[in-house]
Amino acid sequence: MSKVILTGDRPTGRLHVGHYVGSLKRRVELQNSGEYDKVFIMIADAQALTDNADNPEKVRQNVIEVALDYMACGLDPAKSTLFIQSQIAELCELSFYYMNLVTVSRLQRNPTVKSEIQMRNFETSIPVGFFTYPISQAADITAFKATTVPVGEDQSPMIEQTREIVHKFNSVYGETLVEPKILLPDNEACLRLPGIDGKAKMSKSLGNCIYLAEDPKDIKKKVMSMFTDPNHIRIEDPGSLEGNTVFTYLDAFCNDQHFEEYLPDYKNLDELKEHYQRGGLGDVKVKKFLNNVLQEELEPIRKRREELQKDIPYVYEVLKKGSEVARETAAQTLHEVRDAMKINYFDDMELIRSQAKKYE
Amino acid sequence: MSKVILTGDRPTGRLHVGHYVGSLKRRVELQNSGEYDKVFIMIADAQALTDNADNPEKVRQNVIEVALDYMACGLDPAKSTLFIQSQIAELCELSFYYMNLVTVSRLQRNPTVKSEIQMRNFETSIPVGFFTYPISQAADITAFKATTVPVGEDQSPMIEQTREIVHKFNSVYGETLVEPKILLPDNEACLRLPGIDGKAKMSKSLGNCIYLAEDPKDIKKKVMSMFTDPNHIRIEDPGSLEGNTVFTYLDAFCNDQHFEEYLPDYKNLDELKEHYQRGGLGDVKVKKFLNNVLQEELEPIRKRREELQKDIPYVYEVLKKGSEVARETAAQTLHEVRDAMKINYFDDMELIRSQAKKYE
Repeated sequence: MSKVILTGDRPTGRLHVGHYVGSLKRRVELQNSGEYDKVFIMIADAQALTDNADNPEKVRQNVIEVALDYMACGLDPAKSTLFIQSQIAELCELSFYYMNLVTVSRLQRNPTVKSEIQMRNFETSIPVGFFTYPISQAADITAFKATTVPVGEDQSPMIEQTREIVHKFNSVYGETLVEPKILLPDNEACLRLPGIDGKAKMSKSLGNCIYLAEDPKDIKKKVMSMFTDPNHIRIEDPGSLEGNTVFTYLDAFCNDQHFEEYLPDYKNLDELKEHYQRGGLGDVKVKKFLNNVLQEELEPIRKRREELQKDIPYVYEVLKKGSEVARETAAQTLHEVRDAMKINYFDDMELIRSQAKKYE
Repeated sequence: MSKVILTGDRPTGRLHVGHYVGSLKRRVELQNSGEYDKVFIMIADAQALTDNADNPEKVRQNVIEVALDYMACGLDPAKSTLFIQSQIAELCELSFYYMNLVTVSRLQRNPTVKSEIQMRNFETSIPVGFFTYPISQAADITAFKATTVPVGEDQSPMIEQTREIVHKFNSVYGETLVEPKILLPDNEACLRLPGIDGKAKMSKSLGNCIYLAEDPKDIKKKVMSMFTDPNHIRIEDPGSLEGNTVFTYLDAFCNDQHFEEYLPDYKNLDELKEHYQRGGLGDVKVKKFLNNVLQEELEPIRKRREELQKDIPYVYEVLKKGSEVARETAAQTLHEVRDAMKINYFDDMELIRSQAKKYE
């Protein structure tokens, strides 16, 4: 069986370093590993509309931003199919049929949906489209016969829901769909990078994100203002790593080469941490180091993005071509799904013959 | 504005006299009235699958039965577009977007859904597709820009839901969809014809239906076994009309000409009822009259059906052509919907230009 990846993001804003260490970097590695037959990367605009129906312009403006960020990070149209969800009509039809295979109470039990509902203060006014999005995700994943879905652990109930739908569909209508597996990030610090203020969630409205395309000066300003240990007042005080954003970022970003280049007094992050905890190491020094690390990591991304920004029609062309390829694949799956459900009546000569015979 | 009808039935069994007086007869009259620019008649197989996902074969086998019944009753492919819901992929996509405009609690309050859930003993195990079918119906109605939906009063909450969706869509995305109006049956007896056993609901499993294609002998047998007034034991006893199925059927079916032809002792149904209530009129006489009335009404339908049954491929051809026409209409509406939502990115030169300009 061929190995296929499906993953993506909601285009509700530019991507930031949290997306980068949490999924994008890994995605590029997977793309370049040669281990996968196909890699589908979806800009999930239709899913973004499920809780932004009143503000479609936000979604519309961010499709290209996400595409630019993707390609700037190294997602390569020659190796991965980059496409826009709303351009694949077949996904809606798959969702429609899968909805018959899931109960309302099963959706209500989905922990991801539960916590997202809480986060968005939806309570009883949840849009139906948002409530049912685990089913829509199952359509996205199965349409491309994805075997592997690289996402964070918080998404694991969604993959479980997809597996249930696949299992149910195959047992009712015959073996048709492929059960996907989740692929979790291997670096724990990358699972959910906090905002620069130490808050768990990076958000545009809190102004606590470092964007992938951030200006070097702004990166520095943001790093220098980062939340550390509030009790670490004098340099000689011992510092704590717990909830210390600067160290969380270092966990996610730095390697031993960075020390050699920017902070040769220490061999690696363990030594730095040890000194910080012992006392005698100031926040400014650590922040300057993190700034160097981030600048090194983000500069090539920013440069590639600047190049891409010069030819926006080309980026749309990439998405258009990718959407055509994605659509063909999804249409093939939908055809198999309809065949399995036996609702391809007009192609079904046996049905027409048998019913004619009944009335002979 | 052109006047457009959309209506249909779920193909879960042959149609019976309840369907006939409740909707089919009227539908044929509307079709022939010349008052409507377009008449769309939908065989709602996708909706039938929402609570028959485990038994797709039942739905599949009954598509042709419903089509035969339709055409036998006088629905004419030259005047009405007869089509199969599942062949119109655009309906799924419209549903998908409308789901963002309705809250879960709004669906839970829908009285039709509530009572259908109760009827089917679903309780917490309601399939999501069934729970959301008012949204899917809104897609069906709006896809064809229907102005008029001739259905029973029990369906009025569904039409209300559609009107809400239209209103919300138009106010968020700009004037695009048409608000439909319900057209209620004008004869109260026709609203819900009881089964021959007096039970409110005709159902195949209860064996209490008279089908449109019923054999003359079976019609007679069923009429003669009909539930009447259980206290009307001797002919001379006064009889009650309340819950008396034979009289409910006469209310729905007979006219003064029938009396002239089959029961000239009475001028009309009022006289017959009066005698029955007074006493001295036996059930057998009334049933024989009803049998004559039904035989006269159903014979031409049965004859036409027998003719149609000889050419099943033709009936499929009618449905195929109708589905093509329906699909074109729905595709046009979907195009307008996507334009209004501004998710036709690749056709949107202004979007591409403005974003290129932003990065100049």
